[in-house]
Amino acid sequence: MAQAILFHTSKMLASRWLDAFARLEPALDIRTPANLGDPADIDVAVSWRLPPGTFPALPNLKLMQCTGAGVDQLLIDPELPPDLPVARMVDPLQADEMVAFAIWAVVDQHREMAVYRQDIAQQRWTFRPQRSMRKRTVGVLGLGSMGGVLAARLAALGFDVAGWSRSAKAIDSVTCYHGDQGLAALLSRAEILVNLLPLTPDTRGILGATLFAALPTGAMVINLGRGPHVNEADLLAALDQGHLASALLDVFSVEPLPDGHPFWTHPKITITPHIASLADPDHAAPQVIENIRRVRAGLPALNLVDRQAGY
Amino acid sequence: MAQAILFHTSKMLASRWLDAFARLEPALDIRTPANLGDPADIDVAVSWRLPPGTFPALPNLKLMQCTGAGVDQLLIDPELPPDLPVARMVDPLQADEMVAFAIWAVVDQHREMAVYRQDIAQQRWTFRPQRSMRKRTVGVLGLGSMGGVLAARLAALGFDVAGWSRSAKAIDSVTCYHGDQGLAALLSRAEILVNLLPLTPDTRGILGATLFAALPTGAMVINLGRGPHVNEADLLAALDQGHLASALLDVFSVEPLPDGHPFWTHPKITITPHIASLADPDHAAPQVIENIRRVRAGLPALNLVDRQAGY
Repeated sequence: MAQAILFHTSKMLASRWLDAFARLEPALDIRTPANLGDPADIDVAVSWRLPPGTFPALPNLKLMQCTGAGVDQLLIDPELPPDLPVARMVDPLQADEMVAFAIWAVVDQHREMAVYRQDIAQQRWTFRPQRSMRKRTVGVLGLGSMGGVLAARLAALGFDVAGWSRSAKAIDSVTCYHGDQGLAALLSRAEILVNLLPLTPDTRGILGATLFAALPTGAMVINLGRGPHVNEADLLAALDQGHLASALLDVFSVEPLPDGHPFWTHPKITITPHIASLADPDHAAPQVIENIRRVRAGLPALNLVDRQAGY
Repeated sequence: MAQAILFHTSKMLASRWLDAFARLEPALDIRTPANLGDPADIDVAVSWRLPPGTFPALPNLKLMQCTGAGVDQLLIDPELPPDLPVARMVDPLQADEMVAFAIWAVVDQHREMAVYRQDIAQQRWTFRPQRSMRKRTVGVLGLGSMGGVLAARLAALGFDVAGWSRSAKAIDSVTCYHGDQGLAALLSRAEILVNLLPLTPDTRGILGATLFAALPTGAMVINLGRGPHVNEADLLAALDQGHLASALLDVFSVEPLPDGHPFWTHPKITITPHIASLADPDHAAPQVIENIRRVRAGLPALNLVDRQAGY
């Protein structure tokens, strides 16, 4: 009976994952792509993306457990078996770190910190007239386990907050919109727009010319979703034409951001190197162990993805 | 009967204050130091600091209404009449802006954003291992209308939070310390220390060698109080010796920060030009009007300062 794990993640975090597994379930038989043994042994794969050729070699795979909250890299893999259950990580602590990062990003834009940083770098002491939070509408795209908490916390801090999701939601002190008409209504008000949508065929390139044109002049855009949510040429055009005031980006179509990419030095763009969402193996590993146990007990895994919807 | 206001504030905000007064109380007789008329007419002064020679010239002054939350500049004025009531601004919206700025500052330190900014400026894509918020203790010095709200909000975000005040306080999900012994206990745990104390003879220079030595190695210090809270030479020494990891400073002993000051370019220091607390005359003016009415009706003003305590 197949009872081994195929584990594959970034080198950076691998040892912390393995330490956590060893502490929680020392008997776990853990393999890597380089040390796979008999592929028929593998019943659960734990990764955010498997090397080409791996899926077809695993005849007894019962669950693909993603190590991240977003499963877009897995779902676009043409080798992913069509009926294989895929589970994503829903880690409240990871959501907390993302929400704190997003609040940092919203205040960084609200207070025009990038402009102050440029002044400080030139040893210039300046003061800019400031809009108050009460008069500043923040629009949050995506009201899931991260965006929903973010919207509520921003409202508690004092911002005027509107949120949008595909299906209707209700959050205290947040004006919630949904569907296509709702999106237009939100965009017309969103002076600071935060993207936390999952990447799906519907949302790829959503942060493009049409959306930017629907925002108020002087709007600020924050992308914490995935790089391909942004049409990079459209963003540069909207900034350079002055319709958008600034942008803060944590994710990019190609990562690491290539040498010479205009985002590195654009005065209206603040970038961070894909650090918003902080996966902590100590907190996430118990979810993986739980799902392995469930699959081996014949139970459905937790946090299964709707592969049609893409999240 | 004296019924005129002496109004004196920064040029930057003066017109917004005057607009707000005109809207709320058009009949108000408002004078400035340059256009004082008969000094005996003045019953209320509205300012954060008056020009030398002004106080002795005002025989009928009944209230000094500070335009800011901190009254330290007023209280050190040797010309301030000893029995004159002094009121400070307690503006919940100003507190909200300060709290949002402080959260930005804490996350900026927690996530080592200054290091990432230096890497990004060199077009280097890097990743640093990250402590989670749950394992990071933030210490808040001062649990008044700003510090108390900050401590609660940081705890709600997911940080481990400890707070210290002169007298005992209780805040949900925050470990509260007070008094001298309590200060030592807080400092021994505070990996990110935020100063929001009022500036008084007791707190001048409090962020100095003794306090820094009581913090854990690698601690980060944020000063949003007043410049003279910090012993600048001690701070530089603690950073350069590696005991402190970094600092974020919004206020300075001399402002604007002088040309050539080492803080401008220190790689471990992030500075902002005294922008944390955002006074919004639209929100603050009603408090001033209310106090003027109270004084003229023979009632005590609101938000009176304990001049002995200094806040």
